[in-house]
Amino acid sequence: MLKEVVLGMDIGGTNTDFGFVDENGKILLRSHHNTTDYPTFDSFVESIYAEVVRLEKENDLKIVGIGIGAPNGNYYNGTIEYAPNLKWKGIVPVVEKVRSLFNIPVFITNDANAATIGEMIFGNAREIKDFIYITLGTGVGSGVVANGQLIYGHDGFAGEIGHFTAEENGRLCGCGRKGCLETYSSVTGLRKSAEIYKKDFPNSILNKYSFENLTGKIIYDAAKNNDYPALKAFDIAAEKLGKVLANVVSVTSPKAIFFFGGLANAKDLIFDQTKYYMEDNLLKVYKNKIDILPSLLKGNEAAIKGAAALAWNEI
Amino acid sequence: MLKEVVLGMDIGGTNTDFGFVDENGKILLRSHHNTTDYPTFDSFVESIYAEVVRLEKENDLKIVGIGIGAPNGNYYNGTIEYAPNLKWKGIVPVVEKVRSLFNIPVFITNDANAATIGEMIFGNAREIKDFIYITLGTGVGSGVVANGQLIYGHDGFAGEIGHFTAEENGRLCGCGRKGCLETYSSVTGLRKSAEIYKKDFPNSILNKYSFENLTGKIIYDAAKNNDYPALKAFDIAAEKLGKVLANVVSVTSPKAIFFFGGLANAKDLIFDQTKYYMEDNLLKVYKNKIDILPSLLKGNEAAIKGAAALAWNEI
Repeated sequence: MLKEVVLGMDIGGTNTDFGFVDENGKILLRSHHNTTDYPTFDSFVESIYAEVVRLEKENDLKIVGIGIGAPNGNYYNGTIEYAPNLKWKGIVPVVEKVRSLFNIPVFITNDANAATIGEMIFGNAREIKDFIYITLGTGVGSGVVANGQLIYGHDGFAGEIGHFTAEENGRLCGCGRKGCLETYSSVTGLRKSAEIYKKDFPNSILNKYSFENLTGKIIYDAAKNNDYPALKAFDIAAEKLGKVLANVVSVTSPKAIFFFGGLANAKDLIFDQTKYYMEDNLLKVYKNKIDILPSLLKGNEAAIKGAAALAWNEI
Repeated sequence: MLKEVVLGMDIGGTNTDFGFVDENGKILLRSHHNTTDYPTFDSFVESIYAEVVRLEKENDLKIVGIGIGAPNGNYYNGTIEYAPNLKWKGIVPVVEKVRSLFNIPVFITNDANAATIGEMIFGNAREIKDFIYITLGTGVGSGVVANGQLIYGHDGFAGEIGHFTAEENGRLCGCGRKGCLETYSSVTGLRKSAEIYKKDFPNSILNKYSFENLTGKIIYDAAKNNDYPALKAFDIAAEKLGKVLANVVSVTSPKAIFFFGGLANAKDLIFDQTKYYMEDNLLKVYKNKIDILPSLLKGNEAAIKGAAALAWNEI
């Protein structure tokens, strides 16, 4: 008998990972395409379809649904809309195209929402009806769950906490506005802070690196050796994040906030310090109630499991 | 045959208004108690019970549920918790007490949430699944609706947008923190701004009034006569509100935002200006999509209808 699975697909600017995921969140089999190899979305989907059908037969699997996480993926429209990091321009009718080949239910949302559903269905948020999920990577993404449901908003674009104004007239953001949270509290923001502060400290090890070579890992290691500009970069990331979260909490009053992604690997330098700044700025009624927790889903499994969870959650 | 109604009750620090409300939101009959006449919640409820039973019989009505809006009312706990403006201190087990007398379903939430549900069930938000409701009175209250449901949060305390940090190290708020939205964008905030700016303009009519006598109405009339400090006070209220809303929108992506309460009566001075500041600060994906609308529910009917809507919504 064929085992029922869903196809979880994480479409990124460079890589697309997909996997056959069972209803317990186990990835039974996974594969990979270079997103950049495909000038059109049609050629991309056809190539994936051919491989998936082959793998399905070879492994006695039956796909009952497809979940897709993608930059600027829109749940309501079933589209990818104006994704700056993808070759496919404009509005791509993803769900329509994929469904026309596979003839099964297909769902799409953005990367952060997919990861949020992954945490809700397969991760540390299984018992939690009100939580916020924050991805601290190249940028800052987020998903918001209230009453046990992901909030998509009226247009499918809810959950852009990375673009909260963390400082008025602050750093220029890729979105064209100033002072967005992600210019301080992403890996990119951390690198910017380190670049700014290292100049005042000639003895800092960070001066051995150009901005291009200054990775989050290098700053983390320096901070662990008490390098001041590195510690300051983490402190700023945590302060801006903690203060923004203190405001976000007053909208949905979550029980927990989950951190995922590159910066979340810095553990105490992010978790403890952000908690400190958040608590210091919270309205009294919310104090000492909210847990800041790591995501249970690890590395690049999380995106596949998240996309799969989206499909399992709907079908 | 008896007509089925719910009892909608709005408990305030000074006045308690209640009414018999049918399922279309019509108030068939209303009455009033002075909240301050009752040193204990027990004596308050017993007095209301006696009157309600009498009115019910005299008017051939049958109460099938009770909805209560109260300061610091907690939906999950069925309590009023540490309300600074009420004589009843600590945690008051409201639902338990009221149900023990009436023997029908009883629900409580805070004033702003009750008004939000009123707008959703009986008002301008009937067709809208994602919206935010803002009360601009002595303070700033709010209710947040996503996916057609009011967000209570894990503890029943969601929706405190009035305590968003509108300015770091800004005006001292009654909550003990600094720069909260309600210190700028409530009627009280408007009066504070007018008091600050009138001093630099000796010709301003506002100098005829002490701070105690400076009402929102006086500032509104002065603004309409192009009095600079009065216009500036409205501009600050709108700027802080617009900027905070630009951030709040990125959490839940609402279709509409409703304004209710004293400051909302200033119409163009609040609606148009707040919309301007909000749009100017919105992330591109949200621009020109969100309506700022007046509440359909008027004056002190709104609180009774809101409390009644809470009960109708549940039973």
